[in-house]
Amino acid sequence: MTKVDAANKQALQKLFDAEPFLVGMGIAKDTIPGMKDKMLLHAGPHITYDRMSGPLIGAVIGATLYEGWADSVEEAREVLASGEIVFEPCHEHASVGPMAGVISPGMPVFVVENRKFGNRSYATMNEGLGRVLRMGAFDDSVITHLRWMENTLFPILKEAIEKRSNAEDPIDLKNIIAQALHMGDELHNRNKAGTSLLFRSLAPDLAETCQDSEKLSRVLRFIDSNDHFFLNLGMASAKASLDPLNGIEGSSIVYIMARNGTDFGIKVSGLGDTWFKCAAAQPDVLLFPGFTRDDVNPDIGDSAIMETYGIGGFALAAAPAIVQFVGGTPADAVRYTREMYEICAAENKSFTIPQLNFRGTPTGIDLLSVVETGITPILDTGAAHKVPGKGQVGAGIVRMPSEAFVSAAEVFAEKYA
Amino acid sequence: MTKVDAANKQALQKLFDAEPFLVGMGIAKDTIPGMKDKMLLHAGPHITYDRMSGPLIGAVIGATLYEGWADSVEEAREVLASGEIVFEPCHEHASVGPMAGVISPGMPVFVVENRKFGNRSYATMNEGLGRVLRMGAFDDSVITHLRWMENTLFPILKEAIEKRSNAEDPIDLKNIIAQALHMGDELHNRNKAGTSLLFRSLAPDLAETCQDSEKLSRVLRFIDSNDHFFLNLGMASAKASLDPLNGIEGSSIVYIMARNGTDFGIKVSGLGDTWFKCAAAQPDVLLFPGFTRDDVNPDIGDSAIMETYGIGGFALAAAPAIVQFVGGTPADAVRYTREMYEICAAENKSFTIPQLNFRGTPTGIDLLSVVETGITPILDTGAAHKVPGKGQVGAGIVRMPSEAFVSAAEVFAEKYA
Repeated sequence: MTKVDAANKQALQKLFDAEPFLVGMGIAKDTIPGMKDKMLLHAGPHITYDRMSGPLIGAVIGATLYEGWADSVEEAREVLASGEIVFEPCHEHASVGPMAGVISPGMPVFVVENRKFGNRSYATMNEGLGRVLRMGAFDDSVITHLRWMENTLFPILKEAIEKRSNAEDPIDLKNIIAQALHMGDELHNRNKAGTSLLFRSLAPDLAETCQDSEKLSRVLRFIDSNDHFFLNLGMASAKASLDPLNGIEGSSIVYIMARNGTDFGIKVSGLGDTWFKCAAAQPDVLLFPGFTRDDVNPDIGDSAIMETYGIGGFALAAAPAIVQFVGGTPADAVRYTREMYEICAAENKSFTIPQLNFRGTPTGIDLLSVVETGITPILDTGAAHKVPGKGQVGAGIVRMPSEAFVSAAEVFAEKYA
Repeated sequence: MTKVDAANKQALQKLFDAEPFLVGMGIAKDTIPGMKDKMLLHAGPHITYDRMSGPLIGAVIGATLYEGWADSVEEAREVLASGEIVFEPCHEHASVGPMAGVISPGMPVFVVENRKFGNRSYATMNEGLGRVLRMGAFDDSVITHLRWMENTLFPILKEAIEKRSNAEDPIDLKNIIAQALHMGDELHNRNKAGTSLLFRSLAPDLAETCQDSEKLSRVLRFIDSNDHFFLNLGMASAKASLDPLNGIEGSSIVYIMARNGTDFGIKVSGLGDTWFKCAAAQPDVLLFPGFTRDDVNPDIGDSAIMETYGIGGFALAAAPAIVQFVGGTPADAVRYTREMYEICAAENKSFTIPQLNFRGTPTGIDLLSVVETGITPILDTGAAHKVPGKGQVGAGIVRMPSEAFVSAAEVFAEKYA
């Protein structure tokens, strides 16, 4: 075994030992480390306002209105361009967000704890479908819905989650993910089973802690209405499980992949906190009716953490029904998963794919394998309109660009020559 | 097209047009047509007390105690042997029951309506796992649990179901089944997705109609604790969808298969109400620890209605994870489904199998194809201990015996020569 192989084995043992549990909720500014007033977190690597793509601009406008830092869209654009708002990647604050991934100081977030290593991660609640901030929408309905989430959904969920967190059977997110993979989810673009299992697990506690029938009913109906509700929790599980891989001497395992709609960035275990970046891919997705290829923004979102974790696009074989949403055939789905084994250093014994006779999901993207084979990771993702405020245009398979891997490999070779 | 083919096409159109909805609940004696005091319904074709197998005897003892017709097991055996209790098949009362399938006059039942044709079907609530009447258990814990189901679970579920039944979006069981097939269920021995989807759908209504937090929480916890909760509703959907096939002149489609633990019986569309019977199969199942082949009772239960409906064992390809429970490999699961296409007259466009590129499930067992090919239907089923009161011993694949099909085919040939 080479030194790199040994380091990778050590890194992946940390990943496999991870125990992500849903332990609480809080308001971002009181909860996320380093979160401050007038700070906005976003998906992907660092980016300045002038380089932001349409959906990210839409989402930061929405967040500015939500925070009350501006009263109109025009004023929001001025505030955002003025330099008084600090933009930082979610990933620099132990957080993750789907699509634009914007987290503002007043937003409620889930707290996930990796009980094996004690580190925590954070993610907002999924807003649902239609007009939503994460897709760059910022009209009144979006802001009103965010306020309902803060004022009604959050306190009700928080109480039930905190009760469970101290109970004998806290919410074991790894276990939900493992079960959902046996129920046709791949946990990135299909979260129907994960959402169902979380719903079943939490509803009895919600019934106990929430005495207001009408509010309880509305909260349950909201979660039921959104098959992606589990996505943000799956992402936070992945984040909490992968963060301990930061800084393992000699390891070539990729522990972050993320896109901000302009750039794609990765971080590598043995290269610590450095981002390696290149232009984000242009997704060739299955379009919703009424949109054309020209409408599609470059790839965006921290949700690539799911593939970094070895599921999502890497576990497509487990989710044949997803092709109705992302295109292709169930045979293609199997082919994608088989291809990803070629660039991964291990198979996850906890996350198995019944369709492949319970083979573990391809896990631990090895930077060196990516560069050697020329095979880059595939994701199955949502796609946003490039104009701020226009929202989702489709979903599909997108392959990550190779340049970030190549430049990371050069630094890796130099450091560990 | 032969006359038989044309009749089968007509029969299966009725099956495919069926629209089973969960419309209400009631107490068996007030709800099930022809149900009377001192009557017990059971799984499978007609049987007298002296020919009943262990698990069915256990279940009728339990029902006798539950009804208060006896105060002890000994007394119950005397009452049952005395002739004062009438035994009739569930199937003769538009009803179905898993395993022993016993329904007594005081038990609550679900009401499922086939809104296309107006006919209704009935099934008890699934009791959960462990010590349960359907597996032939009859100790105090079983009776106490049945009383909780009658006094707490039933009224709470009834109110929410009746509310939904009159709402814009009543509970569409066919839709739940179609979705569950895309989530790894085959809906006979794996009902995890079906149960989850029903739970999600009903919980907001339960929250609205039940003001007692503690009871609501307990009801939700009970349903969550039992991944088979949906089974009885799936069976009632199948029953309501298949009953309109009774008596279609010239059709060789099997519309009932059922086992009482001693006999296996079928009914055929073109042969109306006549049972064709033979000895029940001896299931060669995957045993729970501590049991031997000698402990296994012959095949029992109305749950074979799922395969008659074209799912269950016929849709094993959709449920690769089930092999961890019933044995074999995911490849075997696909093979079983492929084999069943050989004896079925159609494919169900509403129930598709992603793993087979969304091919419809093999549906409509053609009596003549069974006899011509020598291939009999396979089921994946639970298995009970042959001694009354001992409960479940395992689960697995069981092939139906051919004699009932052969004797039905002889009568069919004679009638339609």
